[in-house]
This record gives sequence, C-alpha cells and structure tokens, in this order.
Amino acid sequence: MSPLPDLAICLQTALACADAARHAVTPHFRSGLTVDDKSDESPVTRADREAETAMRSMIAQSHPDHAILGEEFGLSGIEGEFVWVLDPIDGTRAFITGRPSFATLIALFWRGKPVLGIIDQPLTRERWIGVEGETTRFESSTLPGIVGTRSCPELGAAELSCTSPDMLIPPFDARFAALKAATRRTSWGGDAYGYGLLALGQIDVIAECTMKPWDWAALVPVVTGAGGVMTDWQGAPLTLESDGTVLACGDKVLLSQAIASLRPSP
Amino acid sequence: MSPLPDLAICLQTALACADAARHAVTPHFRSGLTVDDKSDESPVTRADREAETAMRSMIAQSHPDHAILGEEFGLSGIEGEFVWVLDPIDGTRAFITGRPSFATLIALFWRGKPVLGIIDQPLTRERWIGVEGETTRFESSTLPGIVGTRSCPELGAAELSCTSPDMLIPPFDARFAALKAATRRTSWGGDAYGYGLLALGQIDVIAECTMKPWDWAALVPVVTGAGGVMTDWQGAPLTLESDGTVLACGDKVLLSQAIASLRPSP
Repeated sequence: MSPLPDLAICLQTALACADAARHAVTPHFRSGLTVDDKSDESPVTRADREAETAMRSMIAQSHPDHAILGEEFGLSGIEGEFVWVLDPIDGTRAFITGRPSFATLIALFWRGKPVLGIIDQPLTRERWIGVEGETTRFESSTLPGIVGTRSCPELGAAELSCTSPDMLIPPFDARFAALKAATRRTSWGGDAYGYGLLALGQIDVIAECTMKPWDWAALVPVVTGAGGVMTDWQGAPLTLESDGTVLACGDKVLLSQAIASLRPSP
Repeated sequence: MSPLPDLAICLQTALACADAARHAVTPHFRSGLTVDDKSDESPVTRADREAETAMRSMIAQSHPDHAILGEEFGLSGIEGEFVWVLDPIDGTRAFITGRPSFATLIALFWRGKPVLGIIDQPLTRERWIGVEGETTRFESSTLPGIVGTRSCPELGAAELSCTSPDMLIPPFDARFAALKAATRRTSWGGDAYGYGLLALGQIDVIAECTMKPWDWAALVPVVTGAGGVMTDWQGAPLTLESDGTVLACGDKVLLSQAIASLRPSP
C-alpha cells in the first residue's frame, strides 16, 4: 500500500470549513428558527444547509478533483481517491433544543478510510482535530480538556454513552442492553460530542447504531489519534459499506469485552 | 396570606453562592477526579462537597436564622419561614463525563414555597435567575438566549425532554411513554439545564420523576418567571412533600393535555 499523501493542504481546507460552518451556524442557535421535517423525521435547519453550502464551496475551490458527500446535499463529484464527508450539524435534536452539544463534522476519506476528522462545537468553541498518524489536538478558548483516552481495562468500571434510546431499534436494543448491563453507568444525549469527550478521557465506551458515514467518519481519526479504537459492533473497521453500528473504546483492551457483550444471543 | 417579604438581600446571597460554587466547581471539571459512589449509586465529587460547603458558609453568615437543606449534607438549622435548598451539582452524570450541561441549583423556600431560584452553569457561564413575582433573568457572556417560554398550544407539536430513561422506573415508565407518544419529539440528557432551555423557549414540556426537592426547587421560580408552569404529574403545586414527579410546560395551555397523557391507565 502506498504511503499516505501529505494532508497539510487538506487540513487547512478542513479548518477553513470548520470556521465557515461556525460562522453559518452560530446566528441560528437558540433563534426562532424554522424546523423542517424530512421524510425520516430528522430535523433540518437553515443552519444545516447554509453551513454545508459554505463548506462545499470551499472544498470545491481548493480540491476540484475531490468528491463530497454531505448529509444535506448527498454526493457530488466523482468518487476517486479522496472523498470529503460532511455533517454540518450532527445532533440536530440538541441544536433545536438549544443545547451546545451538537457539532459540525468534517472528514476526509482517502482510499475508503477516514484519514482526517474535525469535531467542532461552534458555541463553546471546542474543536477536536484528528489526522491519521498524528496525535489528536483539542482547541478551546473556554473549556478545559487534555487529549488522551483513559485507562479502563475492565468493562465493569466503564462509563458508557449513547445518544438516545430511540436509536436502539430491534435487534440492536437487546444487544445494547447487554452491554449496558456489563458497564458501570450509562449517560445519554451525546452525539458526536461524546466521542470528543471519549478522546479527552471522560467516557470509556460509546455504542450506537443506525449511523450514517457522515455521523462517524470524522470521529475515527479523532478517537484513534487520542489512543482509542473505533469499529463496528463486530470489531470490523468502519467503511462506507458498514452496517451502521459504531463502537468506540477509549482503552483498546475494552474492545473485545464490548464486542462479546454486543454479540446477539444465540 | 401576608405579602412576600423583600427578597433583595436573599438574592444577593444567592448570587454570591452561585459565584462561590463556580469557583469551587470549575477546577474539577474534566480533571482526573475521584468518583465516590453513595449507597444510591449517584456519583459525588469533591466539587459537589466543596461547592456546598462554600454556599452553606455564606448563607449561615448572612442568614443565621435560615435553615439549609443540601443534597450533600442534608438539613441544618431549624425549619422556620425560610429554607435554602441547594444542589451543588445537578447532573453529576453530565459532570463526570465532561459535559457542560450540569448546573448548580440554589433555591429559597418561604413558607413552603420556592420564591427564589438560580440555575448556574459554571463553564458556559450561563445563569438563570428567578424571583417570585419578577420576570426571570438570563445572564451569559458566551451563549445567546432570550427569556420567555414559547407558544405551543398543541401537545402534538411539543418538544419533550427528560434527563434519562433510567429514571423512569415503573409505573412512571408507562405514563411517560404515553406522554412521549403524544408529543412531537423527545430529547434526553437535560437535567436542570433543560428547564433553563424551556425558560428560553427552546423546549416545550419536561416530565421527570424520582426528583428530590433540591432537584426541582430552583427551577420553579425560573420557569414560572419566564411564563411557564411547574406542577407534579397530577397538576398539584410542588411542595417539600411532593411525590417526586415533576412536570414543566412552557405554554400553560399544555398543562392539562400533559396531565391527561400522564394519567395512569385504568
């Protein structure tokens, strides 16, 4: 396999996209915005569309040969070596209820693997920057945080998180319940922000399902660059063809224990 | 009933308590703190204890004849006309997972009724100040927000919130499920912060149970002073003898609909 290309220019584009998204999103937060329901009932805001439009325009200008897959506007360009994957507002439910725990997610796939990821919270001005082969960086002017997942070799001591019980449709609900029973404690309401917290050593395990590539792509470089691991519920690497299950462990030792708990009952 | 006494001095004490709690809590946020489990499994941190100690000391100095009921150290003083009710960290689960959605809660009861309440988020520096008979104030140097619950006359259009499905023990789970089914959408993970968002017109209904007085006392003046209403699940006013069920509606018109949904099936 050929070596990873230099991602410096792409990182600059990604950071500029994150800045642009902050600019687009912030005015709509806690405003009396109009909420549209798409057919799948997920809320879409003007902030979502404006942020994705701004990011697409920047990427197209800097990297006209790269494809872009976004939560709002689908796929544009030809899928070559590089595909950008964007979720302008991950956690729209958090956004529309005024919680600063949603995030803008920006990822770059190279040959089917996410090699660059940004999690950005525009209001608290927290930003996680993950680049393949590098230690994750965390920037924040207001909130503290030191990058690095924490040691937690036993599932029974682990802090588990999941965005919402409502995402745990059968048969995932029973499998998640088994994992939950094996961990110490569960907190709800995380979205991508939870993976950022896992990268800061605040959470040990996150298990979610029905996840689209734009929901998890940016998280992979952030989590792995902080010492953690991300796979699907069978322990396989996440790809654009994954089944939508996502498992993140801060301590790699937890992975096999978590997979065993998530295994369907015979 | 005699008129409400002047609360100006008490408000100054409450604000000083909120400042002191910020000072005590902030250094422990996202630090490698020690988590103790109490018998009921709720996490207690050093931040919790230090903040409550600081607040108790201030109240005792300014109002030696007032009683104090705190989540950490119980009741002190003789229960007379005035009782302070403190929860240094509401949302300890949020706190220990690094989410800035926990809050310090400070309330003052006068003759059994909460007449003053503060919800304070130390990291985002958001503060809701509720005083009986006055419009709620919201102070924040970083996050936007305008006080005032929003109009939402139909339960079917309402944004519902609840801290955690884990708090919904039988028989409350079935009653909550009926309310959930009647509303538009549900978000999880709120704690007291959710009531602050309801006061900013971001959430329409919150229903919770197994709540202690220190969990809800400070929220009542904040919510009512923003145009909303808070009762138990039967629609009765919240008192120190309440059954632990708490219902908040931003639009008062929603109250009877929500109570009807929460009624136990015959």
